[in-house]
Amino acid sequence: MKTQHTRIHEVLTHGQPGQEITVKGWVRSRRGNKQVQFIALNDGSCLATIQVVVDLQTIEADALRAVTTGACIRATGLLVASPAKGQSVEIQARELEIYGSADPEAYPLQKKGHSLEFLREIAHLRPRTNTFGAVLRVRNAMAFAIHRFFQQRGFVYLHTPIITGSDCEGAGEMFRVTTLDAKEPPTNEQGAVDYEQDFFGRETALTVSGQLEGELGALALGLVYTFGPTFRAENSNTARHLAEFWMIEPEMAFYELTDTMDLAEDFLKFLVQTALDECSADLEFLSSHYDKDLFERLRSTIGSAFERLSYGEALDILEKSTKKFEFPISWGGDLQAEHERYLVEECFKRPV
Amino acid sequence: MKTQHTRIHEVLTHGQPGQEITVKGWVRSRRGNKQVQFIALNDGSCLATIQVVVDLQTIEADALRAVTTGACIRATGLLVASPAKGQSVEIQARELEIYGSADPEAYPLQKKGHSLEFLREIAHLRPRTNTFGAVLRVRNAMAFAIHRFFQQRGFVYLHTPIITGSDCEGAGEMFRVTTLDAKEPPTNEQGAVDYEQDFFGRETALTVSGQLEGELGALALGLVYTFGPTFRAENSNTARHLAEFWMIEPEMAFYELTDTMDLAEDFLKFLVQTALDECSADLEFLSSHYDKDLFERLRSTIGSAFERLSYGEALDILEKSTKKFEFPISWGGDLQAEHERYLVEECFKRPV
Repeated sequence: MKTQHTRIHEVLTHGQPGQEITVKGWVRSRRGNKQVQFIALNDGSCLATIQVVVDLQTIEADALRAVTTGACIRATGLLVASPAKGQSVEIQARELEIYGSADPEAYPLQKKGHSLEFLREIAHLRPRTNTFGAVLRVRNAMAFAIHRFFQQRGFVYLHTPIITGSDCEGAGEMFRVTTLDAKEPPTNEQGAVDYEQDFFGRETALTVSGQLEGELGALALGLVYTFGPTFRAENSNTARHLAEFWMIEPEMAFYELTDTMDLAEDFLKFLVQTALDECSADLEFLSSHYDKDLFERLRSTIGSAFERLSYGEALDILEKSTKKFEFPISWGGDLQAEHERYLVEECFKRPV
Repeated sequence: MKTQHTRIHEVLTHGQPGQEITVKGWVRSRRGNKQVQFIALNDGSCLATIQVVVDLQTIEADALRAVTTGACIRATGLLVASPAKGQSVEIQARELEIYGSADPEAYPLQKKGHSLEFLREIAHLRPRTNTFGAVLRVRNAMAFAIHRFFQQRGFVYLHTPIITGSDCEGAGEMFRVTTLDAKEPPTNEQGAVDYEQDFFGRETALTVSGQLEGELGALALGLVYTFGPTFRAENSNTARHLAEFWMIEPEMAFYELTDTMDLAEDFLKFLVQTALDECSADLEFLSSHYDKDLFERLRSTIGSAFERLSYGEALDILEKSTKKFEFPISWGGDLQAEHERYLVEECFKRPV
């Protein structure tokens, strides 16, 4: 036996009125009156729901009792042009089947918006929200676009080690990885922890960067990239720190600086263009709920050449600026985030 | 300034004799006489080397002294049809530049074959060998094909957590991840290690499976897959155990068993077909050096429908077989590797 259903994204983009159709998903809401009920059904294939129209002369009201927000159902019926605005088609239900109910008293996701803090407490359910659905679909599109970009250019995807003995030039604080007894680890003659008895016979940690192995790959394969999880154990609760995140590191043999800058600019523009092309509905949702300027910023990123300037030129601009910086500027020192932001956001108003 | 060079794979597949061309790479070998020298140059873009022909009337012999195995060089010259067999074109060098030399006394990779055990001791150089170059290119092609397969079918790629507090139904032994003091961890009132003081406020480990989060994703997005690193801390030195490996886990809502079997069969066939289409030179190398039956096995995998049978049917076959198994067969027990191998390799002679 094979499943016979069509994903809602497919129905909404290619469905022809007049077809008999089956959809399966999770109920977002149900409303209506004693003659007709409207179910908004989502299956995660897109942000939108499909409207399932239930005529209470066709289906008994009893059968709808468990069709509450969060319930998992099948709906089969005729696809028809929808008179409602914002949707081209809807389904006139002939048959409903309930795969799983969701107790309205207990199910925590309701039609009203929830705070991100609350959703964090119900992480097992948050992929069902518009926000996390959109984020996960956009992230998926970006991950695949990252691979397409590098593969088109002949880069080899490397899986660099996650468990490592290298601190990669001290890029960050590291998580220790061990199978030694947690409370009373074995010690050696010097009284130190005896890592020779640990799993790999030495002290190991989670990688802070695949760069070193990436460089070795590039010195054999020419063009390589990594795209995998990376870890930082700084005890810092800022938006700039994550304990675990996925990082992309291309390494190119024989590239001049201009080649590297071109690659970075092409890469970012390709990703932004892909997001605009493939994720418009999700981006519109995110823009309207979280970031009104999102589209303007994305379009300006692909619409202009990135600014390129030398370190010396950047220092000149920063020294001549009347802006008050928390950290002083001095030749030879690293630029701080506030300096980079000034150059990008105030001085050039585009990527630098 | 931008680099002006063509990758060797591009030269060998699309290069037109009569072009002036620049290649950059690592010397595999140099041989010849007092009139002419032949450099085999590889840049990792493919298994093959390109032959750079050096006329000692054009380039002084002195300039060639550092052109030894492992040296990194640029060669510029005219691309011409090659009289040698096994290559369509070669380069008549007009200019050589040495980016980095490799002391012939010290450089450990020489033209002769090396054992895998030896290469493991020089892991920083082994991507330059034919074997590891081939493996890394095939792995790259397979990784991208995995993404293409799922993306074409509307699956969402999920990055499930690497650091976790879940043991995923005891799928394997786990590595502990911690920032507590290694020698004298803090203890609580009960005298146990006080994980409330650890980075995440509880005991954490490296994931043995993304399955649980994948299932939550599927119950919101419908079709998802994971493809990321996974860890097993069993102290086992067999070919069936890796401490760190990349695992693929699709999770599908609303799939019937037949759908799942179809997906698995289509997936494997797609990967094998892609390998045959895109990696033929690398597979030929691996076949001739490591596995004479490789192509036959790959072609038979895509050439026939996979066998499908119920657990009960499998048990029947195993019980009726005259084969002596190490582990007894009994209804309700798991099949062991030897049972699965018998069904695949001896009984059906194809994937089951």
